[in-house]
Amino acid sequence: MNISLEQINNASPDQAHELLAGLYEHSPWIAEQALKARPFKSLSALKLAMTAVLRQASHAEKMALIKAHPLLADKAAQVLSTESSSEQYSAGLTQCTPQELAQLQQLNADYQERFSFPFILAVRGPRGSGQSKEKIIATFKRRVQNHPDFEFEENLRNIHRIVELRLNDKFGMQPNLGNNVWDWHEAMSQYSDPGYAEQGLLTVTYLTDAHRACTNFIATTMNDCGFDSVNIDAVGNVVGLYLGADESAPRLLTGSHYDTVRNGGKYDGRLGIFVPMACVRQLSLAGVRLPFGIEVVGFAEEEGQRYKATFLGSGALTGDFKPEWLEQKDSDGISMHQAMQQAGLKSEEIVAIQRDAKNYLGFVEVHVEQGPVLNALDLPLGIVTSINGQVRYLCEITGLASHAGTTPMASRRDAAAASAEVLLYVEKRAAENLGCVATIGMLTVPNGSINVVPGRCQFSLDLRAPIDAQRDALENDVLAELKAICARRGLQYTFEMTVKVDAAPSAPDWQQRWENAVTAIGVTPYAMNSGAGHDAMKLHKIMPQAMLFVRGENAGISHNPLESSTSDDIQLAIEAFSNLIHQTAQDRS
Amino acid sequence: MNISLEQINNASPDQAHELLAGLYEHSPWIAEQALKARPFKSLSALKLAMTAVLRQASHAEKMALIKAHPLLADKAAQVLSTESSSEQYSAGLTQCTPQELAQLQQLNADYQERFSFPFILAVRGPRGSGQSKEKIIATFKRRVQNHPDFEFEENLRNIHRIVELRLNDKFGMQPNLGNNVWDWHEAMSQYSDPGYAEQGLLTVTYLTDAHRACTNFIATTMNDCGFDSVNIDAVGNVVGLYLGADESAPRLLTGSHYDTVRNGGKYDGRLGIFVPMACVRQLSLAGVRLPFGIEVVGFAEEEGQRYKATFLGSGALTGDFKPEWLEQKDSDGISMHQAMQQAGLKSEEIVAIQRDAKNYLGFVEVHVEQGPVLNALDLPLGIVTSINGQVRYLCEITGLASHAGTTPMASRRDAAAASAEVLLYVEKRAAENLGCVATIGMLTVPNGSINVVPGRCQFSLDLRAPIDAQRDALENDVLAELKAICARRGLQYTFEMTVKVDAAPSAPDWQQRWENAVTAIGVTPYAMNSGAGHDAMKLHKIMPQAMLFVRGENAGISHNPLESSTSDDIQLAIEAFSNLIHQTAQDRS
Repeated sequence: MNISLEQINNASPDQAHELLAGLYEHSPWIAEQALKARPFKSLSALKLAMTAVLRQASHAEKMALIKAHPLLADKAAQVLSTESSSEQYSAGLTQCTPQELAQLQQLNADYQERFSFPFILAVRGPRGSGQSKEKIIATFKRRVQNHPDFEFEENLRNIHRIVELRLNDKFGMQPNLGNNVWDWHEAMSQYSDPGYAEQGLLTVTYLTDAHRACTNFIATTMNDCGFDSVNIDAVGNVVGLYLGADESAPRLLTGSHYDTVRNGGKYDGRLGIFVPMACVRQLSLAGVRLPFGIEVVGFAEEEGQRYKATFLGSGALTGDFKPEWLEQKDSDGISMHQAMQQAGLKSEEIVAIQRDAKNYLGFVEVHVEQGPVLNALDLPLGIVTSINGQVRYLCEITGLASHAGTTPMASRRDAAAASAEVLLYVEKRAAENLGCVATIGMLTVPNGSINVVPGRCQFSLDLRAPIDAQRDALENDVLAELKAICARRGLQYTFEMTVKVDAAPSAPDWQQRWENAVTAIGVTPYAMNSGAGHDAMKLHKIMPQAMLFVRGENAGISHNPLESSTSDDIQLAIEAFSNLIHQTAQDRS
Repeated sequence: MNISLEQINNASPDQAHELLAGLYEHSPWIAEQALKARPFKSLSALKLAMTAVLRQASHAEKMALIKAHPLLADKAAQVLSTESSSEQYSAGLTQCTPQELAQLQQLNADYQERFSFPFILAVRGPRGSGQSKEKIIATFKRRVQNHPDFEFEENLRNIHRIVELRLNDKFGMQPNLGNNVWDWHEAMSQYSDPGYAEQGLLTVTYLTDAHRACTNFIATTMNDCGFDSVNIDAVGNVVGLYLGADESAPRLLTGSHYDTVRNGGKYDGRLGIFVPMACVRQLSLAGVRLPFGIEVVGFAEEEGQRYKATFLGSGALTGDFKPEWLEQKDSDGISMHQAMQQAGLKSEEIVAIQRDAKNYLGFVEVHVEQGPVLNALDLPLGIVTSINGQVRYLCEITGLASHAGTTPMASRRDAAAASAEVLLYVEKRAAENLGCVATIGMLTVPNGSINVVPGRCQFSLDLRAPIDAQRDALENDVLAELKAICARRGLQYTFEMTVKVDAAPSAPDWQQRWENAVTAIGVTPYAMNSGAGHDAMKLHKIMPQAMLFVRGENAGISHNPLESSTSDDIQLAIEAFSNLIHQTAQDRS
């Protein structure tokens, strides 16, 4: 018998406690305190209320909760709560071979020794179904390497996830839309470029066979969703149009990219195509026509992996597709022009797909956060206030290579030592200025030898800030410090700017709609800037835009096979998107 | 008509000034002040007295001297002193093509703009003969890149060198022995391994054809010098024996290695073979037999370039040749054993060439400094007090690779930033402890990307100190700091020791003989430790040893084609070596 939200909201305290019994392992106080925040607007609101209670608890209380959990697959543990043993059963962990059991027990021992608390994992997967034993063991092996502070928090996050799954069961409220969209991601991730597909790794670069298979998958799925028209345009974008009540009314543009980086994740980009598709399917099933059309675009290219150019898909819509890019060659010598011909795309028609802003209300984009912020805050969604401006440099410091044994410290012209100073300055400078991030991601002493004082050191600079003026100040300070360090050490340096992109602040009215939408589904709206570039940055040039971020698990890792989302979070994104279009409809009616 | 040292020492001040007129360009005050130190023990003593005067002069006086020099090849300069114009003539600089002249004038302009003083170069080469126009232009191009402080001092050094050559002419005292030994170096440098020989670069690795040609060159030259026996031993060392009056008396062992690093210099190692050979030739020509024999060894291998093992030559004499090394393979898959067979060496006889210390008085070694100290002090020779102990590590710091745009500064686990902290600590720690040197020569973020926070960073550590306890303290401090930095930043690290060698302090009596010898030829003795490892370090294990260092030009650069010495400095090394063996003879008689 399922519980309803109404029951919880209307029950006496004792009754309510009884209804929520067994959620947090041996720790009923969390639900008890959370219930003080009744009434709850949604199941999500209840879940978030409980995470908030734990967040405000003392370190000792958190530790006690963690330590109340049984060791994973520890057959000797006789105190498994009913929920925990059934979940471990569903993951097959009670059916381990003796070898697997020995491996898990060794991992348990290693983990316990390193952290002095048990390893906790939501053994049901992101969609809520069982994870394989192999995947659980791989996660265990990875996590035993982490920092203790991180593991402490990661255990708490897994505890919340376990509770979320238990609550879904108690309420009989499964994230069905989220599950469907999660399944689309899984289905499309079967297509991967040669060399990666064989290893089960995801790589979809512009106009490869795998890429074309994705194009078709999106187009077919759009047709199934009930779009009025689905087209593949001259650059390879898949464009689905769901007409409004007035076919000539301005449209809401949305979408994201379906190409990936090499060895990337399943959600980067694609979530922003599939979430609006799920909403359109709901509209179509209900036969609803809004006062505006919805145009969902699966952008063919954003990541710049096969060719040097990036944002080919969204750039084509804003008139930023440069004809000279067609002459660029991939690593096999195939030009972009040739690749397009082979794919049946007419590059001469790209110019015609440029959009006229007056035909659109604006552009909204859903995207995985690709960062650790929401994950660390236990929040499923974030409202983007601005896409950071950025500037990138490749730098080289030149000193004098000399014998490591015979050159006194005071006589050295050490290019690596100067670069180290620059790196630590960059780190400190960005940390002092809220919203800035600055990174030296490439660092190398070319042909360095163990016994030679570095005569050269090459490094990259990646500087970002939510406002252009802030980025420019960061840039000026870093370059001035580079100059000062080299002058003081008697070194020379060169630098070459490779990228400069202006910040794209969100349009206030669209940002407000996202905030309203998130609030409406019972989630605390959290405003944040986007450190990564997105297709919305391109559309920003011609129309208002605003983005919604969805939490990534595993500290928000992205551009990596560990990139992950849950069907519960995806469900919330769909609900928020749906709310946003209905708000827009009200505003326009 | 040549001047004699006696004339200078006995002349009235005015006469003496007259005799030394025109040495320093338009700056007679240097010679005038130096003459106050009369009488001079040697021409070197006079030269050093003048460098000492300039060393104590004010920056303004030094600058005035530099600015008194004409622009190189500036035809417009009408104030060339007689000496300067004849030197420029001998380098062919007055016969430049219009293109060459334009290039020189551009370099003059660039140099003048960068430093605000003229470029000064001793256009007669290290042997005193003319340098080619091409070489002068190459040096000019290189030096215009240097730091202003360095160029200021480098100009002064070139001025002293110009004066040294002028004094040699005035006194009719050419460094004939130095010239001969200089010529041997040139002759032997014609042999170089494939891939380098074609480019005119010097690379002689163990048992290649070029290496075997060097073996033969040394053996033939030893025979010409009048050694009583010359043998090539089982490891490829060339052993020349000059018997003492009593053939069974203990011998003085000396020598150095004749292999090179890849793309190395002509003097590293070889100077320590050729200098004693020149002395033996003098003894043989004069028919002198000492109360002890002299055994000069050209060690076949020291640098560890073809195989991983190092010090194969000297190690074989001390019982340190490990039989398992014979199985090591070079990059072409040829084992050391095979290479020896092809060269006609019998590896099974290596064990028999181990020396018994009781048959030897000790080991002395002459070597280029391979560092900037003597060059910076204007001293041709240095007395080694100890060969530094060293320890080397390969380290890796592991953090978490994450998105450079989306990972807030406070959430990062940046392996490169931690490595930068380690680097700056290493630099600071070594600088605070006299005699220590510490270097991170290899530094890289493997597969780093401009937009990814480094998840891994690899670096090397090379830590050296003249005393073992000092090296151990340095090592402990650096490893403790590595641990502390990683703990603070939540990172993990690994390190692997690859080399640990104890310090080899010089035997006091042999060090004293070198000091006496250097003093006797009118050169200020300068005590210094050796930062680099040398064959003497190996012999140290079984007998007393002490080394003499010879200044290198170009800031003492070594393991580089720019490694350089002059025949004047080589002459002084020969004179010092000769003095040392005669002191030893006196001590033994």
